[in-house]
Amino acid sequence: MGEFELIRHYFAAAPCAQGGEVVALGIGDDCALLGLPPGEQMAISTDTLVAGVHFPAICDPILLGQRSLAVAASDLAAMGATPIGFTLALTLPEVRADWLQAYARGLNQMAQACQLSLIGGDTTRGPLSLTMTVFGRVPAGQALTRSAARAGDLLCVGGALGNAAGALPLVLGERQVDASIAEPLLAHYWSPQPQFALGQALRGKATAALDISDGLLADCGHIAKASQLALQVELDRLPLSAALQALLGREGAQHAALTGGDDYVLAFTLPEVELAPLLAAGWPIHVVGRASIGSGVSLVNGQGQDITPTTRGYQHFREQL
Amino acid sequence: MGEFELIRHYFAAAPCAQGGEVVALGIGDDCALLGLPPGEQMAISTDTLVAGVHFPAICDPILLGQRSLAVAASDLAAMGATPIGFTLALTLPEVRADWLQAYARGLNQMAQACQLSLIGGDTTRGPLSLTMTVFGRVPAGQALTRSAARAGDLLCVGGALGNAAGALPLVLGERQVDASIAEPLLAHYWSPQPQFALGQALRGKATAALDISDGLLADCGHIAKASQLALQVELDRLPLSAALQALLGREGAQHAALTGGDDYVLAFTLPEVELAPLLAAGWPIHVVGRASIGSGVSLVNGQGQDITPTTRGYQHFREQL
Repeated sequence: MGEFELIRHYFAAAPCAQGGEVVALGIGDDCALLGLPPGEQMAISTDTLVAGVHFPAICDPILLGQRSLAVAASDLAAMGATPIGFTLALTLPEVRADWLQAYARGLNQMAQACQLSLIGGDTTRGPLSLTMTVFGRVPAGQALTRSAARAGDLLCVGGALGNAAGALPLVLGERQVDASIAEPLLAHYWSPQPQFALGQALRGKATAALDISDGLLADCGHIAKASQLALQVELDRLPLSAALQALLGREGAQHAALTGGDDYVLAFTLPEVELAPLLAAGWPIHVVGRASIGSGVSLVNGQGQDITPTTRGYQHFREQL
Repeated sequence: MGEFELIRHYFAAAPCAQGGEVVALGIGDDCALLGLPPGEQMAISTDTLVAGVHFPAICDPILLGQRSLAVAASDLAAMGATPIGFTLALTLPEVRADWLQAYARGLNQMAQACQLSLIGGDTTRGPLSLTMTVFGRVPAGQALTRSAARAGDLLCVGGALGNAAGALPLVLGERQVDASIAEPLLAHYWSPQPQFALGQALRGKATAALDISDGLLADCGHIAKASQLALQVELDRLPLSAALQALLGREGAQHAALTGGDDYVLAFTLPEVELAPLLAAGWPIHVVGRASIGSGVSLVNGQGQDITPTTRGYQHFREQL
């Protein structure tokens, strides 16, 4: 079966793969063709997941299908973009119908949830890996970048942090806990929900934004560097789920929130005046710190004292910047 | 070194990575942002090359850099698109500065030749593979697809066929020949030249087009199927290079031209009236057959007799369709 036949057979059946008006030509030719409404720009991001590195080599392909698209799509949310579509480059050690069916099922579920059409791809033989390139659209000049935070802005996040890091030992089968704790954490790991609606609501309001993939501190470092200012994170204000605290205790949960990756929750800077209307409109926004003149990221306690760790754990984080 | 730093350090130095007016935001944020002139559509294609499958695991990284981008960019040429940019998803078993420098050098050479800007990417650890997603622009409705060939159209190609297939035993070190034969063939394999100018010249003239990646017969099968007609290929009209004939003899060269992949020469259907002006303008167009009512691809000799092979070799080709 050729690449298009393979992709068509397993992936194109989902309604979301039919394309909207923006998708002028989908799977099956040398290129897909996308239109773009006047005054809009196309947002594009590429992510690769490698078996044994970014996910367990043996895992449920339905869950992998969900996660592989969500991880990539989250970058569109972080720019405030409206989803259009994605390409899938799938490298497989062998063509196994049961695996492909299950993977496609998970992928199509997430594609529908995200309103993303599969517009093209490539299938090759080799060690299992997945590269998604995602496409969205955003009014010209309104994309949320990392570089325009201003001193005085609030530092905010769009939801509880650390859940995916907390889930990791459960994903790897290194630890077993009660389903009431495991299930919500595993759901965060396998099926992160890109915050498209929040990203779009932040257009013209947030001054900088990204999705947390490397951990709050490391990702705040990206904003601080790109915007050339300092960010203070208040330890006591980190939003933590009950499940994460039950699993790791409060201190362990805080550590996971600060340094754990894979959350795919938005982090952004917001002029103080913008906060109240967004909260009143019901957006799940948590203030976790503030931007100021300077450089780098520091951690402060409730009394504003600098408690930035200087241990090896923090060094590791510094090295990631 | 984080992914952006890695990509910036090795790949972004080339002038072509600075972006034109279409690239509103390049490497370094969650997404790249591309504009699109009014009335144009974006053409998008994704290709993966896996070490040991699509190229020898041990090879010159400069050549790999050239080839990996050219293979992907050729799909833009086949649509008649004007190049914009590309993303690079690079999976590496280890970060080796010498390898990366050489790979980036080859990639940047091809990017400049193709006028493609590197707009983003991802670097991950794992078995060596490369996924390129390429972006071009084309006036709305003028892209060359596979599906609009008409009975009576001429079947044409944009240059000599079979060179890359002829080069393969040389690439793999299975055969050694005189440099005068080896060099032109190896150049075709490692550094194919996407036919952008030809593709753009065929807009509004060719009725269907693609780039030959699977071999002329197999790829003609794609046009025949998408356009719901029959294509006859005339064996005696296949353009063959002197080097390929010196290596394989005339019959071997014809076989390579019919079934060998990786040529990345355009194949297209053209109403007869369009041919003379294009030839007069100097375009390297070779008529190799004709479209007619029916289905499938057949091979005919100079007297118009059907000589479509029924051997296993041809069966293999049929299975690829």
